[in-house]
Amino acid sequence: MNETLNLDWLISVDDHILEPPNVWIDRVAAKDRDRAPHMETIDGLEYWIYDGKRFPTVGLSAVVGKSKEEFSPEPLNYSDMRPGCYDPKARIEDMDRSGVLASLCFPTITRFCGQLFMDASDREFGFQCLQHYNDWLVEEWCGAAPGRYIPLILIPMWDPPLAAKEMERMAAKGVTAFAFSENPEPLGLPTIHDANHYWDPVMEAANELEMVVCMHVGSSSTLPQIAKDAPFMANLTWGASRTSGTMLAWLFSGLFQRFPNLKIALSEGEVGWIPYFLERAEQVLDKQRYWVLRGQKFAGHATTDVDLDQLDIRGSFRDHVFGCFIEDYHGVASIHEIGENNVMCETDYPHSDSTWPDCIGTAKRVIKDLPPELQYKLLRGNAERLYRFTPAEPPTVKPIGA
Amino acid sequence: MNETLNLDWLISVDDHILEPPNVWIDRVAAKDRDRAPHMETIDGLEYWIYDGKRFPTVGLSAVVGKSKEEFSPEPLNYSDMRPGCYDPKARIEDMDRSGVLASLCFPTITRFCGQLFMDASDREFGFQCLQHYNDWLVEEWCGAAPGRYIPLILIPMWDPPLAAKEMERMAAKGVTAFAFSENPEPLGLPTIHDANHYWDPVMEAANELEMVVCMHVGSSSTLPQIAKDAPFMANLTWGASRTSGTMLAWLFSGLFQRFPNLKIALSEGEVGWIPYFLERAEQVLDKQRYWVLRGQKFAGHATTDVDLDQLDIRGSFRDHVFGCFIEDYHGVASIHEIGENNVMCETDYPHSDSTWPDCIGTAKRVIKDLPPELQYKLLRGNAERLYRFTPAEPPTVKPIGA
Repeated sequence: MNETLNLDWLISVDDHILEPPNVWIDRVAAKDRDRAPHMETIDGLEYWIYDGKRFPTVGLSAVVGKSKEEFSPEPLNYSDMRPGCYDPKARIEDMDRSGVLASLCFPTITRFCGQLFMDASDREFGFQCLQHYNDWLVEEWCGAAPGRYIPLILIPMWDPPLAAKEMERMAAKGVTAFAFSENPEPLGLPTIHDANHYWDPVMEAANELEMVVCMHVGSSSTLPQIAKDAPFMANLTWGASRTSGTMLAWLFSGLFQRFPNLKIALSEGEVGWIPYFLERAEQVLDKQRYWVLRGQKFAGHATTDVDLDQLDIRGSFRDHVFGCFIEDYHGVASIHEIGENNVMCETDYPHSDSTWPDCIGTAKRVIKDLPPELQYKLLRGNAERLYRFTPAEPPTVKPIGA
Repeated sequence: MNETLNLDWLISVDDHILEPPNVWIDRVAAKDRDRAPHMETIDGLEYWIYDGKRFPTVGLSAVVGKSKEEFSPEPLNYSDMRPGCYDPKARIEDMDRSGVLASLCFPTITRFCGQLFMDASDREFGFQCLQHYNDWLVEEWCGAAPGRYIPLILIPMWDPPLAAKEMERMAAKGVTAFAFSENPEPLGLPTIHDANHYWDPVMEAANELEMVVCMHVGSSSTLPQIAKDAPFMANLTWGASRTSGTMLAWLFSGLFQRFPNLKIALSEGEVGWIPYFLERAEQVLDKQRYWVLRGQKFAGHATTDVDLDQLDIRGSFRDHVFGCFIEDYHGVASIHEIGENNVMCETDYPHSDSTWPDCIGTAKRVIKDLPPELQYKLLRGNAERLYRFTPAEPPTVKPIGA
C-alpha cells in the first residue's frame, strides 16, 4: 500500500473525555481541594461536587462498549464505564483497535465550553480550575500518547480579554483549538453579533494565533424543541437545526471579513444539511438583500458588519467553515457541493452516537464511492491541515474493519 | 411531442391570493358590511379593516413584476400591484405566459391558516367570514377558470368539530385541500401531539375525505430567530428550519398510523434538507429508541401514539409527506433519496421568492438532468395525484422559457 494513502486510520475531531477524579485535586492548593471539582460517593453513586452542587454522570455520556439495547441515561459510576472513557492510555487501546489514529476530545463535567466555571459563584477560582483543566489536558491526557490527541482547551467565556490571554498561554504549548458556544445567547452572554463587539478579544486572538473555534452541538446548553409536547425522538433528530443556525449566523456575521484567519468547526452536527442551506443563502442574498438593507432602516432588523453586496457565501464557507460526519451518507455523497476540504471524521466516543468499535469500518462504508485521495482528506488530511496537527505513525496492527 | 409528456407546463402548489376588496362585502348581510373585512383608504393608503384593527398590505406580498432591486416591505395599494395578484382572470394571463397550468393559492389577509378569524373577538361571525372566503374561492377565484386552480380552504382552527363540518361541506364541492398550521403551539392552540387528541375531528375528516393537510412555512405566525440580534439575512435563510421540525413532528406523531389516508404538504419549505433529516431520523430511531422508551418513564419525555419498534420512517414519509421546490437544485438532485412521487413544483406568485415570469424556464433548469417521465412527475404528475386534480388542457401558445 502507498504509505501516503493509508486509508486504514482516521482522525476523529469529536470525542469526549470523562474527566478522571484527580484532574483538579492533584493541581489545586491543598486548602482548595474541597472546593475544586472532586468526586464523592453518596449512597453508592459517584458525584462530581463543585460550588455547592453535585452532578452524577449521565449514563449516555459513557455507553461505549454497550449494546444499543443497554443504553441508558441513568447515572453511573466510573467502575461501570470502559476505562477508555477516562484513561488516556486505555483510550489509545480502544483507538488502535478501531482505526482511530488521533482524537480531539471535548470535556464533560465542565460542559462543552466550560459553562461550569462561568456559572460558579467564584469565577476567579473557576478560572483557576479552568486553567488546571487545560494544563491537565495537554500534560496528562495528550501527553500520555504524543501524536494521538489534538488538544482542545476551554476559555473563560465571561471575560474575553482574559480568554485571549489564556489562548495565548496555551497556544505557546502548541494548542490550536478552543471550545466556543454554538450560541452564547442562552448562556446569558452577548452573541457573536454584539454591537459592542464583546467577543473581539477572543476573535482577535483566534485570528492571530490561528486557533480553531470549535462549537459542539449542545454547547448553547439548549435542546431543540419543536413544540413543548413534541415527541422526544423528533426533537433528538432535529439536533442539527442548531448547527445550521450557527453556520448561518457566522456566515452573515461579518466576522470572517474582519478576521480573515478565523476558522470554525461545527462538531457533531453532521453535514448533510449544508448543501441546501448554502444554496438557499446564496439565493436569499441575491434576491432579498435590497429590501433587507432598506428594511434595516425602519424595521429594526439586526445590522451586520458585512457588506452584503460584497458577501461571497461559498467563498466564506470554503475558507472558514468545517463540518464533520459520523455516519452521514447523504452529506458525504454531496461532498462536491460542500467542499472536499471542509469535511472531517468523528466517532463520538464514548457517547450514544459512537460507532466504536467499528469506527474505521463505518467511515469506510460511508466514503467508499469516493476516490482514494478524497477518502484520505475526509479520514485525516483535512483535520491535519485545519488543526495544524502531525499525527504519530499509525500502529502496525491493522484495526478492525479496515 | 408526446402529449402525455408535455413538459412545457407546471402545476404550482404554492401561490398567493391578494383578496380583492369585494370578497366579504358582497357576501355578508347588508348590516354586517362594516364589520366584515373590507377596505378603506386612509391618508392615501389602503387598509383592510376588521374587528377594530387595520392592516395595510405588506409590499413583499405583491412584488411580482418588479425587479429585485425594487422589492420593498413598505405598504402598497392594490393599484400598485400587478392585477394578477387579486384578479383570477389576470392571474391566468400571467400563468399562461409563464407556463403555469394550474395553481393552488394560499390567502393573505386571513393569514396562512385563517388566524385572522381565530383572533377575532366574535368567532361566530369570524366563522361566517371564513365560510365566505371558502365559497368565494371556489365560486369566483377557481370558478373564473375551470381546471386552472386547485382550491385550498380555511378551517376554524379554534373548533375542530366545526372544522370537520366545514371540510365536509367543501369536500362536497370538490375541494381536496385545507390550510393547517406548521406548528399550532405559537398560535395558542394544542399541538398535533395533544394528549387529549384535540385535533382528532380534523384528522378524521381529512382521513375520511382524503383532504391534504397543507402547511405553509410561517403558518405558525413565527419567524425563526437564531439569536435576538442575529443578522436578518441569516434568519431569512434559516426559514426551512421550521419546516424540518414540522416534518419530524408528524413523522414521529403516530398520526399516520392512526389515520392511514392522511397526507401532508409542506409548502415553501423547499426539499433539499429532507434527505439528511430522513437519514438521521432512521439512525436516531435505530440507536436511541431503547433508552428513549425507558427514559419516558422517568424523564417526562413526551410520549407518542406510535409504536417506535414498528415505525418505518421512510415508509411513512413515502406515503404521507409531500414537499415542493422553487429553485432547489440540491433537493432535486437528491430526488431519489426523497422519493420520485413526493416532490412538486411551486412558483410563489406574487411573493419575493417568485420566479415569475420565468416559472417554467426556472423549473426546467432545475430538473433538466432527470429523465422526462420524472420531470413530468415533478412538474405536474405528483400534484395531480396528491390533489386528485385534473387540469384543463394546456393553452396552445408556448409559454416563455419552455
